[in-house]
Amino acid sequence: MDVNQQRLRSDLEANAEFGAVPSAAGRGRTVLTGTQPDRRAREFLCERLRDAGLTVRVDAVGTVVGRWCPPSADPEAAPVASGSHLDSVPEGGIFDGPLGVYGALEAVRTLQEAGVEPARPVEVVSFTEEEGQRFGGGLVGSGVAAGELTVDEALAIEDDDGIPLGDALADIGYRGEGAVDAAGWDAWIEIHVEQSERLVDAGVPAGVVSSIVGLSRCAVEIAGEADHAGSTSMAERADALTAASEFVLDVERATGTEPDVSETTVATVGKLGVSPNAPNVIPGSVELTVDVRDVSYDAIRSVIEATRASLARLEAERPVTTVFEHEWDRRPVGMNERLRGALHDAGEAAGVGTLDLHSGAGHDTMHVATVTDAALLFAPSVDGVSHNPREWTDWADCAAVTRVLAGTFADLAGE
Amino acid sequence: MDVNQQRLRSDLEANAEFGAVPSAAGRGRTVLTGTQPDRRAREFLCERLRDAGLTVRVDAVGTVVGRWCPPSADPEAAPVASGSHLDSVPEGGIFDGPLGVYGALEAVRTLQEAGVEPARPVEVVSFTEEEGQRFGGGLVGSGVAAGELTVDEALAIEDDDGIPLGDALADIGYRGEGAVDAAGWDAWIEIHVEQSERLVDAGVPAGVVSSIVGLSRCAVEIAGEADHAGSTSMAERADALTAASEFVLDVERATGTEPDVSETTVATVGKLGVSPNAPNVIPGSVELTVDVRDVSYDAIRSVIEATRASLARLEAERPVTTVFEHEWDRRPVGMNERLRGALHDAGEAAGVGTLDLHSGAGHDTMHVATVTDAALLFAPSVDGVSHNPREWTDWADCAAVTRVLAGTFADLAGE
Repeated sequence: MDVNQQRLRSDLEANAEFGAVPSAAGRGRTVLTGTQPDRRAREFLCERLRDAGLTVRVDAVGTVVGRWCPPSADPEAAPVASGSHLDSVPEGGIFDGPLGVYGALEAVRTLQEAGVEPARPVEVVSFTEEEGQRFGGGLVGSGVAAGELTVDEALAIEDDDGIPLGDALADIGYRGEGAVDAAGWDAWIEIHVEQSERLVDAGVPAGVVSSIVGLSRCAVEIAGEADHAGSTSMAERADALTAASEFVLDVERATGTEPDVSETTVATVGKLGVSPNAPNVIPGSVELTVDVRDVSYDAIRSVIEATRASLARLEAERPVTTVFEHEWDRRPVGMNERLRGALHDAGEAAGVGTLDLHSGAGHDTMHVATVTDAALLFAPSVDGVSHNPREWTDWADCAAVTRVLAGTFADLAGE
Repeated sequence: MDVNQQRLRSDLEANAEFGAVPSAAGRGRTVLTGTQPDRRAREFLCERLRDAGLTVRVDAVGTVVGRWCPPSADPEAAPVASGSHLDSVPEGGIFDGPLGVYGALEAVRTLQEAGVEPARPVEVVSFTEEEGQRFGGGLVGSGVAAGELTVDEALAIEDDDGIPLGDALADIGYRGEGAVDAAGWDAWIEIHVEQSERLVDAGVPAGVVSSIVGLSRCAVEIAGEADHAGSTSMAERADALTAASEFVLDVERATGTEPDVSETTVATVGKLGVSPNAPNVIPGSVELTVDVRDVSYDAIRSVIEATRASLARLEAERPVTTVFEHEWDRRPVGMNERLRGALHDAGEAAGVGTLDLHSGAGHDTMHVATVTDAALLFAPSVDGVSHNPREWTDWADCAAVTRVLAGTFADLAGE
C-alpha cells in the first residue's frame, strides 16, 4: 500500500494557484474566507473528492465533507475522519492547511487502490476559516463541529467591513445546510506542517503531537491625542505610538521574565494599526493584538497579567488611556493515547520514522479533541518557516506522512 | 476699516462642510487633493472670489489665484499676495489652511468696502497639496510657485495607488495652465493658526513669526521574517515590529539627548505600517516615517544621525535588516524684516496685540520666502490642538488677524 506522491503534489500545486501571490522567495497565496480564491479552492476540492468517488456535502458554515462509504462499511458506524483547512493568512504558504486536506484525500485513494475494505466510513474534511484572518479569531468551522459555537453565532461573525460570514459564504455559493458533528466521529486525525524545525533537526519525517498549546488572544487600544508633528513640543505630546512601542517591548520581555514561563512560552503583537497614520501628525491612537501561547496555562496567565501591568504603568507614566480586552482563551489540549499509538504503529509498519513533540499552533484538532478521540500528525517544515511564501515541505515528506495516515486509516476503520 | 467677522465665519463654516467628518469632540474634515471634497472646496472658493470681483485663474498644478486689480492699481506692478491652502490631513481641523485663504479674501473685501485704492494688485492664493497626505511630501503648489520643483515633476508625483497628481487634478477639473510665479510678488503674507499654545498663554491674538523651523523627513524599512506566532520560539524570531518599537523609542529619546537639541527640537514617527499585519503572524516587515524639526539645523542633523545609529544597533542586536532613506530636507527659514515690521505696525494701528514667535510647522511660506519677501501671521489655537477635529480658533481672533492683514495690505499695496 503506497501513496501516489505525484498525484498528491499535483493536487497541492493546483490548489496553490488559487489566490497565488508572486514572490521571489517561494510560493505564496492569500485565500481569505468568502473571497473568490476561496470559492475556486473549494470548487476544485469538491471536484477532486467526487473524482475519487466520495459523496460531498457542505454544512451551514461552509465546512466541506467528502464521505467514502464503500459496500464493506456500515453506513451507521461512526466514521474515521481526517482533514484540515484551505484558507490562509495574507501571503501565507501553500502547505499550511491544504496538506491536511489533500493528504486525507490521498490516503483514501491509497486505501481504494490497495483494495482495503473498511468497516467504517472514512471522511475527508475541510473546515471553514481556520486562520481567523477575516472572520473572528479562527477555528470557526471546527468550533461549530465541536459545538463550541452555534451555527447562528458563526454565521453572524462580521468582517472589518461589517459583512457577516453567512453573507460571505452565500456570496461564493458555500453556505450549505446542517452542521458537521465531530462528536459523531470515531476518531479524527489531522496532518499539518510542523511550522517549527524539530523534525528537520531530528531528520524524522513524521511528528506525533502529544499536546497542543493553550492560546490567549487580547485586543488593546492605546489613545493619546492626534496633534501637529511640528508645533507640538515633545513635552506637550500624548503620542499613542511611543506608548504602544513600550507595550510591544514589554510583551516580548514578559515571555522571559514572568512566573511559570519557559522556552515554550511565546507572545506576539502581530497586528498593529496607527490612526490617523500620517507622517506629520502625532499618532492619536493605536490598536493592536496580543497572542500568547504555551503548553502551560499558568505561564499564559502570567504573561497576560504582565501585559495588563504594562498598560497600567503606561497610563501612569504617559498621558494616554488604554483599553484591554481578553477576547478569547483556549487551554492546552492533550492528544488521544489510542490514536498516538496507532500513528506510531503505522509509521513503523510503513518504514516512516516518528517522533513525539508538542504543537505550538492551535489547529482545528484543538476543537475536535474536546468531543472525540483526536490526534495531530506533523510533517517537517524547512527552516521552520510558515505563514510566509518561504514555507516548504519536501514532496517526499508530504507522501511519508500521508503513508502513515493511510496505514492508520486501515487500522482504525477496520478491514 | 473693519473686517466683517460674520462673513468670514460664514465662508469658513461653508468650507468646513466639504469632507466633513462627524466628531463628538469638534469639527473635523478630510480634504485630500484631487478628491470630491477638494473639488467642492475649490468650486466654492472660486465662486466667493468672483463674488468679490476678483479675476480667477488656476495654474497647471491646481493652485488657485484670485486677483484684485482695481483702476487705481498698475496691472504691471508686482502684486501683494496672501493665502494658504484648502487641503487637510485625514480628520483634520477646519482652520488649518482655510483661515489663511478666506482671511486673505476677507482682507481684500475690507479694503474694497473701506474705499482703499491700492497702487498694486492684490492676489488671494490657495496652494495645492500643502499637507502632502496624498501626493509627495507636501507644499507642492508653493514648491512649483517658488521654482523648487517643475510643473512636470509635480504632475508626475503619484499617490499610493500609482495615480499621478496630474490625473487627479484633471479628474476634478482643476488642472489649469502655466505656473504661479511667487518671485513676481512684491510681498507674501500667510495667515495660519498657530497649532501651539503660546498666543493663548500670552493672551495675544496675533503672532508675527520670526523664523520657520527646518524639517527632515525620512523613510525607514525594517525587515525580519514573517513566521507563525505559535510555533516559532522567541529565540528563533526575527520580529520586525519589536525592532521597530525600539526604534520609535530611540527617535523619541534622541530629541532630549543628542548634541544641539533644545526644547524646540521635535521628532515624530507618525506613519507606521506592519506587514502582513495578522494576529497570528510574526511581523515580517515594518515601514515607517520619521519627521524631525527645529529652528536649529544642527539639532535636526544630530537627531537624524541618532536615528541612523539606532538602526545600526538594531541590525547588530536583532536578526533584522534596515533601509534608511533621507527623503527630503528643508533648512530653517527666517521671515522678512520689512514685512514683520509692517505686521507689528498694522497690529498697533488696529488695536490688535502682536507677539514675536517661531513656527514649528513648515508652511507654504517656507517656499515662497526663498524667492521674495515673505511673512507668516499666526492666530491663536485653543489648547494648541491641530490636525484634529478639536482644532479651534475663536471667531473674534480670526477677525483680529484678518484686521492686521488688511492694514498691512493697505500699507504694502500703497494707496
